[in-house]
Amino acid sequence: MSASFKIAIAGLGTVGGGVMKALAARGGELSSRAGRRLEVVGVSARDRAKARGFALAGWTDDPLSLAKGDADVVVELIGGEEGIARQLVETALSNGKHVVTANKALLAKHGLALARLAESKGVTLKFEAAAAGGIPIVKALREGLIAHGVNAVKGILNGTCNYILTEMESSGRGFADVLKEAQAKGYAEADPTLDVGGGDTAHKLALLASLAFGVAPDLNAITTEGIEHITPEDIAFASEFGYRIKLLGIARRVGNQIDQKVQPAMVRVRSALANVSGAANGVLVDAGEAGPFFFSGRGAGDAPTASAVIADIVEAATGAPSFVFGRPAASLRPLDPADGSKAVSPWYLRFEVLDVPGVLASIAGHLAEAGVSIESMIQRVRAPGAPVAIVMITHETAQASVERALKAIGASDKVRARPCMIPMES
Amino acid sequence: MSASFKIAIAGLGTVGGGVMKALAARGGELSSRAGRRLEVVGVSARDRAKARGFALAGWTDDPLSLAKGDADVVVELIGGEEGIARQLVETALSNGKHVVTANKALLAKHGLALARLAESKGVTLKFEAAAAGGIPIVKALREGLIAHGVNAVKGILNGTCNYILTEMESSGRGFADVLKEAQAKGYAEADPTLDVGGGDTAHKLALLASLAFGVAPDLNAITTEGIEHITPEDIAFASEFGYRIKLLGIARRVGNQIDQKVQPAMVRVRSALANVSGAANGVLVDAGEAGPFFFSGRGAGDAPTASAVIADIVEAATGAPSFVFGRPAASLRPLDPADGSKAVSPWYLRFEVLDVPGVLASIAGHLAEAGVSIESMIQRVRAPGAPVAIVMITHETAQASVERALKAIGASDKVRARPCMIPMES
Repeated sequence: MSASFKIAIAGLGTVGGGVMKALAARGGELSSRAGRRLEVVGVSARDRAKARGFALAGWTDDPLSLAKGDADVVVELIGGEEGIARQLVETALSNGKHVVTANKALLAKHGLALARLAESKGVTLKFEAAAAGGIPIVKALREGLIAHGVNAVKGILNGTCNYILTEMESSGRGFADVLKEAQAKGYAEADPTLDVGGGDTAHKLALLASLAFGVAPDLNAITTEGIEHITPEDIAFASEFGYRIKLLGIARRVGNQIDQKVQPAMVRVRSALANVSGAANGVLVDAGEAGPFFFSGRGAGDAPTASAVIADIVEAATGAPSFVFGRPAASLRPLDPADGSKAVSPWYLRFEVLDVPGVLASIAGHLAEAGVSIESMIQRVRAPGAPVAIVMITHETAQASVERALKAIGASDKVRARPCMIPMES
Repeated sequence: MSASFKIAIAGLGTVGGGVMKALAARGGELSSRAGRRLEVVGVSARDRAKARGFALAGWTDDPLSLAKGDADVVVELIGGEEGIARQLVETALSNGKHVVTANKALLAKHGLALARLAESKGVTLKFEAAAAGGIPIVKALREGLIAHGVNAVKGILNGTCNYILTEMESSGRGFADVLKEAQAKGYAEADPTLDVGGGDTAHKLALLASLAFGVAPDLNAITTEGIEHITPEDIAFASEFGYRIKLLGIARRVGNQIDQKVQPAMVRVRSALANVSGAANGVLVDAGEAGPFFFSGRGAGDAPTASAVIADIVEAATGAPSFVFGRPAASLRPLDPADGSKAVSPWYLRFEVLDVPGVLASIAGHLAEAGVSIESMIQRVRAPGAPVAIVMITHETAQASVERALKAIGASDKVRARPCMIPMES
């Protein structure tokens, strides 16, 4: 066996700890697969004194020094799109070291520049753990499903959102209530905005879209909507229609343009995505003539994410040269965003209205004016005096038309709260 | 871009044709990913005159000559575990050429020897298309899910069987009838034995087990049962219990031993495997601490299989050195087979009996004697005089105990046909 492959790890939280433990437990086996002995030569984290259950070989207080030492690969598990994480990755690549990272925010924002840097130095920058935790979807898109071109990628990419939606469905409780419980259990961050607002899904989607379509990751071209406004009633109505609500990241080819969006969507109960439950992730890839492929598994947590990081480390050790986004960085096109408001689907609409005469007529009028035709409607009685929920399913309609109608309807003082619109996926 | 990567293709049937078409349609894009121009320099097939819809560059009547020319990679799509296919692969590897193949039979039988040969010559032998068509499961097991060890792989690996079972369920028709239709539609071979008897699934399972567990592929250590004896009644009863019948290839770790089997099994209707319909394939990987991962997609047909072949060709072109079964061939252990008859599960049992007094008592007696306890039972009336179906679900029982009871029960002249036993997967 040739010289050992030297690993430096910056960040020893959940994922970093998982990587250290797996390397300790199965180092021999993994070294055999890599064809070289894997050796951790340096580590860095916030708090040296913290009890971690593994030895801290080559500790340093300065993570940047890991990018300057004798490591062959620097594993960046600090996080954040700027600051020390970015400096560390740039320095490591500049110094001719491979980089493995789980940092979706960094790559979604600076992916193209970092890919160029890596290629110019003849090293690799790998990020399997940045997309869907343990699911090897980056590898599948980068190397596996390349022959026929990809038409669309749809994914449940945020375990926190999927956990909350699954809990809301099974318990009938509201968003705020379930979120609070998720925070107490450690399934959601103290500041949950990035997760529940869809931002984390957008970061991941930008990376998958780049791999799928040969474009530079482009976060700005993603329309992002979170799950905060989804009510137990929406979930119950979805179920009545044979659907389930999931937060999806969707990137699809529209001619030569790409439409990217993060939004709650209704998926058929029998579909693969609908059956991704709890904190799991799932990704559906429409690979043209080769057909649809589906991947699911644990999208977060120490072992699944460490699994992805370790696969990348082993691959870097084998010396396999691979383009960061599957193609030479120079050939990644700037993303030409499609007009997402032209997307056509049936829509679920929910209006909260005052129980007074003429409201339904007014809503129906605005919908008709915008050319939105209704397939079915449900109106449920609530407590006397409370606003009434009117739920409608439209025929296939462009998003822009529905938005136009909802804007007019929302302006009425008889309509409480923002009308809710959720696309129904075929 | 460096010198072109020269490809020779032996076998231009469905898959070979799909490869040629995809290379013609997307050669530029694929060359960019490979970092080298992909160029077909030689082809061979049975009939030169056949209309194929693509040009035959470098035709030869002698496929073996492709292994001796200037190709960098030889793509073997002839099939068969011996004969010309084996000669071609051995000659190509011996001559220092990479090999890409879809030949599961060849690899299941000679995988270890071929892996040794490839490694000794410093070339790769790739076989993504041999396992589950377009699903990148070989890549996932070889490179992706390596960190925590695999406990079990369960797969629907034969599209013909899954198509037949799906059709039997949706139409209520019998096996022979649906098979005949599948043959007429081209979904099943004129001689369907290898598919419906489970042999094809066994070939694929041997490869997945090797990748998952670091053992040499061992076809002889697989207990194989097909779907020929499954009746519409079994499928209907399964549905009543909330299950669906699928032909599964299962390889699981039992201590240091490996249990490999191909058998019809009942899977819960809501499970991922149960929702793999028609000619699709699906694979569930229990990757230890990293959790379960599920992969599904089209397992056969020109485009999906060509997709896998092309991914392998591009990877060979990048020069990525990779061990054939994920580890050095010298480190692949001989497979130590577990005693599969110790496998414990609830069982579905169906007996066809004469409608005479004492039969049920006799069956119940034999089951009790073997220590098999019954959880529920259904007996249905049929036409007067016809044999009666008695269906039972057992509590968790070792396979050996059920087999012992069924042997005794089957010996009775009041029991018609072979009793049917199907495990119910958790």
